[in-house]
Amino acid sequence: MDLRKTVADLHAELVRYNLVVWTAGNVSGRVPGEDLFVIKPSGVSYDELTPENMVVCDLDGNLLEGEHSPSSDTAAHAYVYRNMPEVGGVVHTHSTYASAWAARGEAIPCVLTAMADEFGGEIPVGPFALIGDDSIGQGIVETLKGHRSKAVLMQNHGVFSIGKDAKAAVKAAVMCEDVARTVHVARQLGDPLPIAQDDIDRLYDRYQNVYGQRSPR
Amino acid sequence: MDLRKTVADLHAELVRYNLVVWTAGNVSGRVPGEDLFVIKPSGVSYDELTPENMVVCDLDGNLLEGEHSPSSDTAAHAYVYRNMPEVGGVVHTHSTYASAWAARGEAIPCVLTAMADEFGGEIPVGPFALIGDDSIGQGIVETLKGHRSKAVLMQNHGVFSIGKDAKAAVKAAVMCEDVARTVHVARQLGDPLPIAQDDIDRLYDRYQNVYGQRSPR
Amino acid sequence: MDLRKTVADLHAELVRYNLVVWTAGNVSGRVPGEDLFVIKPSGVSYDELTPENMVVCDLDGNLLEGEHSPSSDTAAHAYVYRNMPEVGGVVHTHSTYASAWAARGEAIPCVLTAMADEFGGEIPVGPFALIGDDSIGQGIVETLKGHRSKAVLMQNHGVFSIGKDAKAAVKAAVMCEDVARTVHVARQLGDPLPIAQDDIDRLYDRYQNVYGQRSPR
Amino acid sequence: MDLRKTVADLHAELVRYNLVVWTAGNVSGRVPGEDLFVIKPSGVSYDELTPENMVVCDLDGNLLEGEHSPSSDTAAHAYVYRNMPEVGGVVHTHSTYASAWAARGEAIPCVLTAMADEFGGEIPVGPFALIGDDSIGQGIVETLKGHRSKAVLMQNHGVFSIGKDAKAAVKAAVMCEDVARTVHVARQLGDPLPIAQDDIDRLYDRYQNVYGQRSPR
Repeated sequence: MDLRKTVADLHAELVRYNLVVWTAGNVSGRVPGEDLFVIKPSGVSYDELTPENMVVCDLDGNLLEGEHSPSSDTAAHAYVYRNMPEVGGVVHTHSTYASAWAARGEAIPCVLTAMADEFGGEIPVGPFALIGDDSIGQGIVETLKGHRSKAVLMQNHGVFSIGKDAKAAVKAAVMCEDVARTVHVARQLGDPLPIAQDDIDRLYDRYQNVYGQRSPR
Repeated sequence: MDLRKTVADLHAELVRYNLVVWTAGNVSGRVPGEDLFVIKPSGVSYDELTPENMVVCDLDGNLLEGEHSPSSDTAAHAYVYRNMPEVGGVVHTHSTYASAWAARGEAIPCVLTAMADEFGGEIPVGPFALIGDDSIGQGIVETLKGHRSKAVLMQNHGVFSIGKDAKAAVKAAVMCEDVARTVHVARQLGDPLPIAQDDIDRLYDRYQNVYGQRSPR
Repeated sequence: MDLRKTVADLHAELVRYNLVVWTAGNVSGRVPGEDLFVIKPSGVSYDELTPENMVVCDLDGNLLEGEHSPSSDTAAHAYVYRNMPEVGGVVHTHSTYASAWAARGEAIPCVLTAMADEFGGEIPVGPFALIGDDSIGQGIVETLKGHRSKAVLMQNHGVFSIGKDAKAAVKAAVMCEDVARTVHVARQLGDPLPIAQDDIDRLYDRYQNVYGQRSPR
Repeated sequence: MDLRKTVADLHAELVRYNLVVWTAGNVSGRVPGEDLFVIKPSGVSYDELTPENMVVCDLDGNLLEGEHSPSSDTAAHAYVYRNMPEVGGVVHTHSTYASAWAARGEAIPCVLTAMADEFGGEIPVGPFALIGDDSIGQGIVETLKGHRSKAVLMQNHGVFSIGKDAKAAVKAAVMCEDVARTVHVARQLGDPLPIAQDDIDRLYDRYQNVYGQRSPR
């Protein structure tokens, strides 16, 4: 029930940072030690989410617990959990600026120290993929496996982000939109200055190892 | 009284998603089984809307119940209800990004999967029409009849959206502004990638038939 | 005390519509039948405004009642009241999009029906003027006297709007920013379509005479 | 404890004006008469900030009081306090529009009277500098020492602002983003009109000496 509450509550962060409208975005979290994850029910508004109406699926995306259907993006979440055992949380949004880069099929270049910190370089583009089978999940995993970035811009679609737990994946979704917007705005009036690869590496290394309180978040 | 409450409350969604300022936007809903609809009173602020001050009109736009005058856009709503019997809800806004496309008289191209889902293709432009007679209503119906899109950009004016009920029309208004903004932002820095017509068709078909909880919304 | 409350409360609309940051914007209202007006105190945050801390000035801008100094823009408000007896309310903001047009010294062209309704045509630019004497007030009055528009873009500065009372002036400030933003967004991707002068005239005439509840607002 | 409360509470202004996401921004205030300052703890969300969890550091950035680690930007704050004795407050944000100018390494030109008032001219760019030693602090001090501006755009990074106390530094951060946004928007559609240096000087002089209530803020 604790993870159900965590996942339900984290949707409020998507709302707070204007990453979602209506019901178009979802958070999931892997149940520690089990081949299960908790995810948003389909078509339920963010105001109505509670620990009780979250649904539980196995790693093939089959509904195990819950009165509602799981999110229509469940297959993509499930594919990520099956193929990236280090991932404990997945988030999907159509946040405006990140989706605009995705509509052009253009990666977001790393021209902000905050991007180097969080993403370790550019935020990459994944393939165009239709919902309905494992195409989206495969596109996410192919793009993010072995990549520093915790977010991928799925072409003509939106963002998927991952993390060690659901909160970390939400943080990546929030930071992805924030840097997508700032780099977009910077580019509107000229070319942002590049950051040397060496400096990107140092920033990424430091942030992953030093930042925050003792228990990493 | 239930429909009055539904229509009154749905205006809060226009406010929440920043689709309206001051009193410039309105929602209406058809009374099931009767040639009547409930609509916002004219010139009343969103904070002051209650089930009691909603007004009821017949399908010619004549005021039947209510202490206030009906919305100044009532004739357009009425025309839609008269000529599109499948429509149960109508929404009008001047939401920023959609109205900007409307000011240029330019349809929003379908370059996002969320657009294919909800609108089944581009969001079309309707004619320039003056308030005061049936011109606006005619423009809406001519443009949307037989079109997949549930929203029309009335030239130099704003958005009208329709749905099977008032909530569905509000959802279309919210999604219209969301995709209008994302496609605008995408276009600011280049050309969005097209989505193949075949893929648009599959996405639209799936979303209309599969998405959401058992009772469609 | 009623007008003090009205003027204090109307500042919340400036905040609600994001027309102001920190303390940079103010509302005033003429005391009916007297050569006095109520205005925001200088440097007091919007959260702290109460009927009690509003200040009262005569039409030369001299402080008559109040523990705080009047707004630093009081001279401009006073000049408008002295020279435009039909004006009952004045609002000043640095709202983003309107101020951006003002920074370029460019009038906002009337390409939206909502602009024709509220402003009857373009929103004009006033001269560059320094604070400290009657220059700003003169610039406002020279620009708006005999003009349909209830708002003026003071060059490199911001917006002043007027109305028959404080609420109408606030509405004009809200609508000014709304259309400034929409026309800006429209122009970013091309040229908005013009509206024929005849149609602008009809829209303006209708809106000023017909719209809203029986008591005009 | 009073300063702890002031500094904790001022973070709410960063949230209110959308200058920060997640935990990426911080406020500090110098303890009057002592070589100490109060600063945000690292990695703690804005919702959770209280007077009790603020931390106290000496001017070398060493933690003296507090259960949490100090902000990862503490070294930069400390360097400013060591080298600019007139500074009583420091703020750091990655606010969108200011950071976009910073990403291009471009100063914000003074084309708004509000900029002349608050910043006395352009908002300058500081060097690219890595976190981890005194580089950022040195860049801030080199840029702002002897400069009228209370804010600096650190290249590819974000904003640091200063003030006589924490509240004044927060005001500078808020105004910096506001003018960064307005000038950006103005520039999107052409060239803003310049303000003569003489007029900038007069505006700055007047605002620093006359504006606000008797007790300066």
